[in-house]
Amino acid sequence: MKIAELPTPAIVVDGRRLESNLAKMARALPGGRLRPHVKAHKSTAIAKRQQDHGHELFCAATIREIEGMARAGLGADLLLANEVLDATRLGEVVRGGARVTVAVDSRETIDAARRGGVGEVLIDVNVGLPRCGCRPDDAGELAEEARRVGLNVRGVMGYEGHVVGNADRADRERGCAVSMERLLAAHADVGGELISAGGTGTYDCNLWATEIQAGSYALMDTAYAKLGMPFEQAFFLLSSVISVSEKFAVADAGLKSLGMDHGNPDIPGARVLFCSDEHVTFAPGRAEGDDLPSPIDWVSPATIRVGDRVRLVPAHVDPTMAYHERIYVVDDDRVVDQWEIDLRGW
Amino acid sequence: MKIAELPTPAIVVDGRRLESNLAKMARALPGGRLRPHVKAHKSTAIAKRQQDHGHELFCAATIREIEGMARAGLGADLLLANEVLDATRLGEVVRGGARVTVAVDSRETIDAARRGGVGEVLIDVNVGLPRCGCRPDDAGELAEEARRVGLNVRGVMGYEGHVVGNADRADRERGCAVSMERLLAAHADVGGELISAGGTGTYDCNLWATEIQAGSYALMDTAYAKLGMPFEQAFFLLSSVISVSEKFAVADAGLKSLGMDHGNPDIPGARVLFCSDEHVTFAPGRAEGDDLPSPIDWVSPATIRVGDRVRLVPAHVDPTMAYHERIYVVDDDRVVDQWEIDLRGW
Repeated sequence: MKIAELPTPAIVVDGRRLESNLAKMARALPGGRLRPHVKAHKSTAIAKRQQDHGHELFCAATIREIEGMARAGLGADLLLANEVLDATRLGEVVRGGARVTVAVDSRETIDAARRGGVGEVLIDVNVGLPRCGCRPDDAGELAEEARRVGLNVRGVMGYEGHVVGNADRADRERGCAVSMERLLAAHADVGGELISAGGTGTYDCNLWATEIQAGSYALMDTAYAKLGMPFEQAFFLLSSVISVSEKFAVADAGLKSLGMDHGNPDIPGARVLFCSDEHVTFAPGRAEGDDLPSPIDWVSPATIRVGDRVRLVPAHVDPTMAYHERIYVVDDDRVVDQWEIDLRGW
Repeated sequence: MKIAELPTPAIVVDGRRLESNLAKMARALPGGRLRPHVKAHKSTAIAKRQQDHGHELFCAATIREIEGMARAGLGADLLLANEVLDATRLGEVVRGGARVTVAVDSRETIDAARRGGVGEVLIDVNVGLPRCGCRPDDAGELAEEARRVGLNVRGVMGYEGHVVGNADRADRERGCAVSMERLLAAHADVGGELISAGGTGTYDCNLWATEIQAGSYALMDTAYAKLGMPFEQAFFLLSSVISVSEKFAVADAGLKSLGMDHGNPDIPGARVLFCSDEHVTFAPGRAEGDDLPSPIDWVSPATIRVGDRVRLVPAHVDPTMAYHERIYVVDDDRVVDQWEIDLRGW
């Protein structure tokens, strides 16, 4: 099949760019130094390719992601890097033969792990991002509590999410160092073999974590592109131009196929005016997006016609992928494979 | 089942508020005066309730919505209020016995309808929103072209989407009048029995359309709540508090369960600080959201605990619903029904 025959809107992944991104990261953080976060792509097909590049440990944000990874035979060491109140389904995954570790940051979540039958935990530490995680000073006590109820405490986790998106690399490095100082202090009280942290934005400046939880590097988005990462834009939202008027054109991709929290998608060579549920209205002219890696087949706005294909570059990969059922893998203009986005929902 | 037993995040619809909204709209725009837009809720279960209130004509934004409506026995008169380049699947729906009309605004989309086997069209007219639709002056010629190739032109369509969200009612009325003047001019050239337009924001001030395409009124969101509509907030995103610290708490609903183009959701009684993929971080204190209809069971931030349930009021209903698989229908604290959100995807 050719790209031109695909129904739109459709998630299109450039297979060579994906492989290049996976290979680059595997060279920088080989094997267990990386714990790929599947929340970014939500696809066991991509996770299997990450495994092909030597990574056996995986990280997830939802129970369903953990279930799907185990079902796909990727359950050697799964970390749910998030707090849960009911770990029953996770316990079933453990009884099915997978290794599951869950983040805890309170007595309630420790109790949930115990009751659900998940025997292994990480103490989640707040290292500066106002989200989950205990105070660094409380980590040791929580670890004691977890061990008292029979859990194996494998170490600590602390996500420097307030730092990973900082456009200035020196700022990122400084912020990361401050966060990791907190995490190491907690780890001194907690013990265990794992210090799990980081993301795509700090994969090469977080020198303290034993493993980095990066996910976005595989597919990338315009937010991460601004950080000057060595990873290429590997996924696009393919759309079709359904209407053309004097000053703008409209393609059939919108709010229901794009994560919008980071703003509009980019269309290299055009200005995105606005998105509505099933539409993106765009106008000819140079835009911020122009310095992004240019999609292979974007058309000149001067000659744009109904039926033309336009590739959008989403601003945020994770909530974009969560809208879609499948990925079309492409090589130039050929569709060479189709992968399910099988880890959606909760 | 009690609400407290629901897995989260979950879409919760207050059945009585939904019924009240449907009844209010059916009184204002009975029967065929309303063509409910299913893109807002994407659920044939809610469409059936709209039918129970006397509406037989329905409006959709995607081919899959049309297919699902026909399959659910709601195919008496379906309008795809959007341009398509390949109408083959729509033609199959027609051959299955449903009545399908598709919007066209160019020779290419007229040709797509003809080739796909959809015999009926509306001429889509741009009435001010920079999106699809031909120039009013071109509508007559397109209608002629459509009739020449054997299509039944049922009339015109023109969505005043640039007006429906205007907070000032007088401005809405003025903007709507200007848009409808354009649509009526086009209709004079086109003919046909239908003048299809409008939305929830103009349902009672668009006095020119023969039918109003409203959808959001059934469930509502914080954007429409600002317009002083008589419709009540009828759906919520139920979440569970998974982490509490000194200054904020975190619940398990985020960017992958909320349409974010209109901004953060509201939590009455709290300030939403930010959302990430699977989290919302919020802090005690009065906020803009406080003047919204208060969810039944929101907890006092002063005493908030891990395990508490928090209802979020989404900023935009359509892209929020598109993330979810099902609706839990509730009556006070009881879950009384479960409906599939069965019109997702394309």
